[in-house]
Amino acid sequence: MTHDSAVTSLDRFHEWFRERADATDYRAEEAPLDQLEGWHTDPRTGNLVHRTGRFYTIEGLTTTVWDEDGDERGWAQPIIVQPEIGVLGILVKRFDGVPHLLMQAKMEPGNINTLQLSPTVQATRSNYTRVHQGNAVPYLEYFTDPRRGRPLADALQSEQGSWFLGKRNRNVIVETTDDVAVRDGFRWLSLADVHALLRMDNVVNMDTRSVLAAYPQPPAAERREEDSFRGALARSAAAPPGGTGLLSRLTAVKAARTLTRRLVPMNEVPGWRRVTDRIVHDDGRYFSILGVQVEAGDREVPRWSQPLLAPATRGVIAMVTRQVGGVLHLLLRARTEAGTFDVAELGPTVQCAPDNHRVSSVRPPFLDYVLAAPQDRVRFDAVHSEEGGRFYHAENRYLVIEADDDFPPGTPGGYLWVTLGDLNELVRHSHYLNVEARCLLTCLNALR
Amino acid sequence: MTHDSAVTSLDRFHEWFRERADATDYRAEEAPLDQLEGWHTDPRTGNLVHRTGRFYTIEGLTTTVWDEDGDERGWAQPIIVQPEIGVLGILVKRFDGVPHLLMQAKMEPGNINTLQLSPTVQATRSNYTRVHQGNAVPYLEYFTDPRRGRPLADALQSEQGSWFLGKRNRNVIVETTDDVAVRDGFRWLSLADVHALLRMDNVVNMDTRSVLAAYPQPPAAERREEDSFRGALARSAAAPPGGTGLLSRLTAVKAARTLTRRLVPMNEVPGWRRVTDRIVHDDGRYFSILGVQVEAGDREVPRWSQPLLAPATRGVIAMVTRQVGGVLHLLLRARTEAGTFDVAELGPTVQCAPDNHRVSSVRPPFLDYVLAAPQDRVRFDAVHSEEGGRFYHAENRYLVIEADDDFPPGTPGGYLWVTLGDLNELVRHSHYLNVEARCLLTCLNALR
Repeated sequence: MTHDSAVTSLDRFHEWFRERADATDYRAEEAPLDQLEGWHTDPRTGNLVHRTGRFYTIEGLTTTVWDEDGDERGWAQPIIVQPEIGVLGILVKRFDGVPHLLMQAKMEPGNINTLQLSPTVQATRSNYTRVHQGNAVPYLEYFTDPRRGRPLADALQSEQGSWFLGKRNRNVIVETTDDVAVRDGFRWLSLADVHALLRMDNVVNMDTRSVLAAYPQPPAAERREEDSFRGALARSAAAPPGGTGLLSRLTAVKAARTLTRRLVPMNEVPGWRRVTDRIVHDDGRYFSILGVQVEAGDREVPRWSQPLLAPATRGVIAMVTRQVGGVLHLLLRARTEAGTFDVAELGPTVQCAPDNHRVSSVRPPFLDYVLAAPQDRVRFDAVHSEEGGRFYHAENRYLVIEADDDFPPGTPGGYLWVTLGDLNELVRHSHYLNVEARCLLTCLNALR
Repeated sequence: MTHDSAVTSLDRFHEWFRERADATDYRAEEAPLDQLEGWHTDPRTGNLVHRTGRFYTIEGLTTTVWDEDGDERGWAQPIIVQPEIGVLGILVKRFDGVPHLLMQAKMEPGNINTLQLSPTVQATRSNYTRVHQGNAVPYLEYFTDPRRGRPLADALQSEQGSWFLGKRNRNVIVETTDDVAVRDGFRWLSLADVHALLRMDNVVNMDTRSVLAAYPQPPAAERREEDSFRGALARSAAAPPGGTGLLSRLTAVKAARTLTRRLVPMNEVPGWRRVTDRIVHDDGRYFSILGVQVEAGDREVPRWSQPLLAPATRGVIAMVTRQVGGVLHLLLRARTEAGTFDVAELGPTVQCAPDNHRVSSVRPPFLDYVLAAPQDRVRFDAVHSEEGGRFYHAENRYLVIEADDDFPPGTPGGYLWVTLGDLNELVRHSHYLNVEARCLLTCLNALR
C-alpha cells in the first residue's frame, strides 16, 4: 500500500500494468454448465440459477415491440436476469489542480486479456452486502457515505439491453480531498491519460467507459442560435433536436412504442437449445451461454464458477457525427431492445454484430456506410470489451465516423441528430443513453 | 365553434363554466361491479377485466420494500393495472404576448362536481387509437405531429403510486402560432387566470395540475453561492441538495432500496374482500373499488360503465417550505409506493389520508405540524380532486406551509431539502417528482 503521492504517468502505467498481469495468479477455464459449483439447472424450467437464489439467473424471455409506425417485431431469447443494482464508482482527486482517477487493474473471468482498467469500485449488491462472504470492497465508503466527497455525477444507468433484462447500475463519480491510501492493484491516473488509453484495444473496461460518460465536460465552445441551428439542420434534412425539442422527440417515441415481454422457462425458448455444456442458438448466431471455473488470488473470493454470455462474433458500435452550423452533431437511434428498462433509449448510429445479418437481405442502416468510411473520416477506431463479469470475450469495434457531404440526406424514423452538448447534459440523468452510446460518448469526449 | 380571438377573462370564465355545467346532460350513477356492461370478474382470479382485454384491470399486488436502513415493509392490496401511456397535452398560444392555455370543461364520472378544467387533450391510448370506436380526439395532432408547434415541456410522468401499478402518461405542453378554431367546451385562458383558479376547490383537474408543473419558469431570482448555501443548510441541520448533490442523494436512495412486487389474483389478497357490489378493505380503510354507469351527451362514447377507485377519506398533501440563505427550499420525501415505476420518486413532505392512521400509534412525520400551522404560515390551502376517470370523489387538501424557527431541526432519513429552482429543473425529466409533488409544485409556482 502506498500513499497518494503515487500518481502514475502513462509510461509507468504500462510497466505497472504488465507487472500486475505477470504477478496475477489467475485462471479462468471453460466448464460445462452442469458442472458449475453452486449453480444448477432447474429441471422444470431449464433456467440456470444459483443455489442461494441470488446473483443472477439465465431465463427465457419473449418480447414483442410495436413501433411508432405500427410495425410489430417479436422474438424469444435467453436473457440474464439480475434485478440488483450495483455500484460502479470512480474516485477523483486533483493533484496540482489536475484531476486524477483512482483506477484498478481488475481481472474478470470473461476478459479476453485477464486484466483491464476498472473503476475504483465495481461491486454488485451481493458483493458489497457480503452475500458471498468475501473481503470488504475497498473504497466503497466514498460512494455510500455522502460526507466523504463531492459527487460529480450519479445516476442509475442501464446495461446491454440485448443481454440483460432491465439491468441498471449506479454510475457515480466522487471527488475527494482526502489523503487516500492507495492499495495494491490501484493507481491514480490523470483523466487525460485514461482518455489516451481509450485509443488502445481492450484496456479501459466497460464500467470505466460507462461511468466516465458523465464526467462533467466543459460547455460546448459554440452555443447555437436556435434559428440558425434549425435552418442548418433543415438544410441537412435532419430532425430538429436541442433542449426541450430533443426531450419531446424522445418522449413521443416512448409514448408511441409498446414493449411487452414475459419471462418464460428457458427450455421453452424456440430456436435455442441446451447442449451438454452450453445453451446455444440453432444457427449458431447471436450468443451462447457457457460456464467458467475461476481461480484468482486476490479477488474477494479466491475460487468460483459462473455462467457467462459469449457473443458469437465481434460487434460494431459506431457513431456518425457531422458539423452543422459549426456545432458537432451525432446521429443517435432510439433503440428498443428485449431488456430495455423503459421502452427506448438513445443508442449509437450503428449497434450490431454484422455476422448476425449475413443471411438476411436487410442490412442495418448505416452499417455499410461506417465500415466503408475512408481513413480520413475515421475519428476514432478501437476494439473494446464488454463487462468480463458477465460476458465472455465480448468485443466490439468502436467507431466514430465524421460524415461528409455524400452522407444520405434523409434520416430514417427513430434516428435523431443530437448535439454533443445535449448528450453531455442528458447523460447526467438515468435512461436516456444506452450503455453503448455512453461508451462511445466517453471516446468522443476523449478526442476533445 | 369560435375563433381564437375568443380569449376568456376570469369573470367570463365563471359564467361560461356554469353554462357548460347547466347545458351538460350527464349522469354518473353507482352500479354493482357485477352489472357493469363490458366488464366482468374473472371467476378464477377475481380480477376485474374488460371484455376486450384493454383499458385497465383491477388486480391484486403484493409488495415488499427494504429501505436504506434495512427496514422491511410488506403488504398486499388491489391495484389498477394500465400499462398504456396516454397523452395529457396543453396547447399554448400568446395573445398580445401573454401566454394562454386552451382549456377544456370536461366531465369525468368520478368528479365530485361533474365538470373540471382539463388539458386540451386528455386521452388514453385506447381513446386516441379509437379502441372504443368513439369520435376523434380534438387537437390531438398538436401533440403527435412535431411540426405543429414548439414543445415547452414533454416527459413521461407517473401517476398515483398507491393506486396504479407503474402508470405513466405523457405530460406535454406545445406552443403554437396557428389560428386555432376553438371548439365548444374549450376556452383560451391566460396562465395567470389558471393559476388564480387553483385557489378554488375542485376546479383545475389533476391532469392540468400535473402537466403545468413543467411549464417553463423564470429562473429563481437569487442563485445561491454553493458555500453559503451549504453553510445555511448545515445550520438548519438539513440535507445538502442542489444540482449533482441532489441527484446523488436520490440515486443513492434508489440504489439502496429494494422494491419487489408481484401481481396476484384479486381473490387472494388478504385483508380485502369482494362484497356484492364492491371490493372493500376489511376495516373500511384505504379505498374501495366500485362501479359507475355513465350517460354523457358529448363524450367520445355517449354511454358506458366502468370500475373506479374510491378513497375512504380525504387526504392531505402538504409541502413544508423554508427560506434558507434567501432561497426558497422545499422539504421533499423520497417515496416508494406499491406502484412506483422506478423504486422511488420525490413526494411532498406529507402525503397521506389521516384517517388511515387513526388506529395506529405512529403518525406520519410532519402531519400534525402542517395541520396545526397558524394561518399566517399557510401559503396555500385548497381542496383538489384526483383524476375523475379512474378515481371516485378522490379529494385531497393541498397545503403549502412556510416553516418558522420552531420547525424540528433534524431531518428524518429519506427527506431532502430541495430548492424550488432545482425542482423546476428536475420536473422536465421523467420519474423525479411523483404526481402529488408535481401538483403541489404547480400550486407553488402559481404563488410567485
